[in-house]
Amino acid sequence: MKVARFQVEGEISFGVLDAAESGEGVDVVELTNDPIVAGYDTTGRRFKLEEVRLLAPVIPRSKVVCVGKNYADHIEEMKSLTGGETPAEPLLFLKPNTSVIGPGDTIVRPAISERVEHEGELALVIGAVAKDVAEEDAMKYVFGYTCANDVSARDLQIKDGQWTRGKGFDTFCPLGPVIETDPAFADARIMTRVNGELRQDGSTSQLIHSLARIVSYASQAFTLLPGDVILTGTPAGVGPLEAGDSVEVEIDGIGILRNPVRNAGD
Amino acid sequence: MKVARFQVEGEISFGVLDAAESGEGVDVVELTNDPIVAGYDTTGRRFKLEEVRLLAPVIPRSKVVCVGKNYADHIEEMKSLTGGETPAEPLLFLKPNTSVIGPGDTIVRPAISERVEHEGELALVIGAVAKDVAEEDAMKYVFGYTCANDVSARDLQIKDGQWTRGKGFDTFCPLGPVIETDPAFADARIMTRVNGELRQDGSTSQLIHSLARIVSYASQAFTLLPGDVILTGTPAGVGPLEAGDSVEVEIDGIGILRNPVRNAGD
Repeated sequence: MKVARFQVEGEISFGVLDAAESGEGVDVVELTNDPIVAGYDTTGRRFKLEEVRLLAPVIPRSKVVCVGKNYADHIEEMKSLTGGETPAEPLLFLKPNTSVIGPGDTIVRPAISERVEHEGELALVIGAVAKDVAEEDAMKYVFGYTCANDVSARDLQIKDGQWTRGKGFDTFCPLGPVIETDPAFADARIMTRVNGELRQDGSTSQLIHSLARIVSYASQAFTLLPGDVILTGTPAGVGPLEAGDSVEVEIDGIGILRNPVRNAGD
Repeated sequence: MKVARFQVEGEISFGVLDAAESGEGVDVVELTNDPIVAGYDTTGRRFKLEEVRLLAPVIPRSKVVCVGKNYADHIEEMKSLTGGETPAEPLLFLKPNTSVIGPGDTIVRPAISERVEHEGELALVIGAVAKDVAEEDAMKYVFGYTCANDVSARDLQIKDGQWTRGKGFDTFCPLGPVIETDPAFADARIMTRVNGELRQDGSTSQLIHSLARIVSYASQAFTLLPGDVILTGTPAGVGPLEAGDSVEVEIDGIGILRNPVRNAGD
């Protein structure tokens, strides 16, 4: 099932995608509330997908947890900046919920950074309170999967040493376009394109620390709340975003998260 | 004015402290809502301070922003662990809102850490949406001031390099006991005691980056929301917390934030 959050006629709702009754195209079937907490009751209304504006499918009330250095080829390409070692355990950091934007929203390059980069990633959306959960139980706490772009002001990330500021600017966490609740992401292709050109092309099968391991490990540190999001790391091919660019993160089985880029103040 | 969040007869309310009508002791005057967003309308009820349970005076909906290395004597004592350099700009990191506890709540030492330490700090509570605010305007966005303990699993903080996990465990952000809204914290004494013994004794006059500078700087990176909290750094004297300890952070003009300590699983 594909869960969306959308705006139509000024109103914000949750919904699920469904084949249009006409047989052509896709509809959004409106739900009464956020399915993470309230299930799948429908309002009886449905809209054509192209007539609604999709929003970030979830706004984390607490945390966006991120995992650094989780693909070997990305660790290799970043060697000169962040060291080439492979962490024995998932390396965690946080992005604030104020950095989250949705599909189509604009990534804003801050004036104080000279190098803003894309990092396409598979994101997990947490569905139930998780604290100290074992790896074998961990995936029961996952509501679904979406595309994420762990946008990074690389110069500030490296200068600070702590990655928080460089990765935490407003607009630096695009999420969407929908949450896929079917857990078929052990070997999903993940691609990032800039202006149509393929820049990152990996598979979640290459993750150093598995999805279950990441959820279990994060839950040893922080209580994970419904609606928290975990970004699972980026494969090789990260690179700059300039004003006027259009960046896409595509994951098989989820869809395409596309965002334009502009400079602050423009 | 001293703002409290408290529980009495099972119900959670906001209030302000006031001299008791009897002339002896302190009352809590109940407010209709959170004064950060709703002002100071009272319900007409008042309670004796000792009859209510004080809670964390604010639950950040978005961020707890922290500033590292903001007192010269603390930078010096941490030299062998985190390098002795003084950052030219405030060094920011985040704690998740799931780490926040209130006065009297128990700090839990996670089983995976062998060294949990106290860091007494002055915390700012944000009162209005702040984005790219100038230093000279920054303090207008501050609602008030409270005591914080930036509890840190020092071994994990150093092992990870990124400070997020070591400082982000549940219970690692005690806040309270109240929010003082009077802005008289340019030269406030800040003390941390463990089992009554003075361990940290500094003054906010020693801050390398001023309160206004920190708010302005953080607002260049993240939009600050009402109820966000900023921890402003710790003076020298950090040290271990063991099960059975009682740790106090006291700031002149605010009060004493006292928390017991136990081991996870005990």
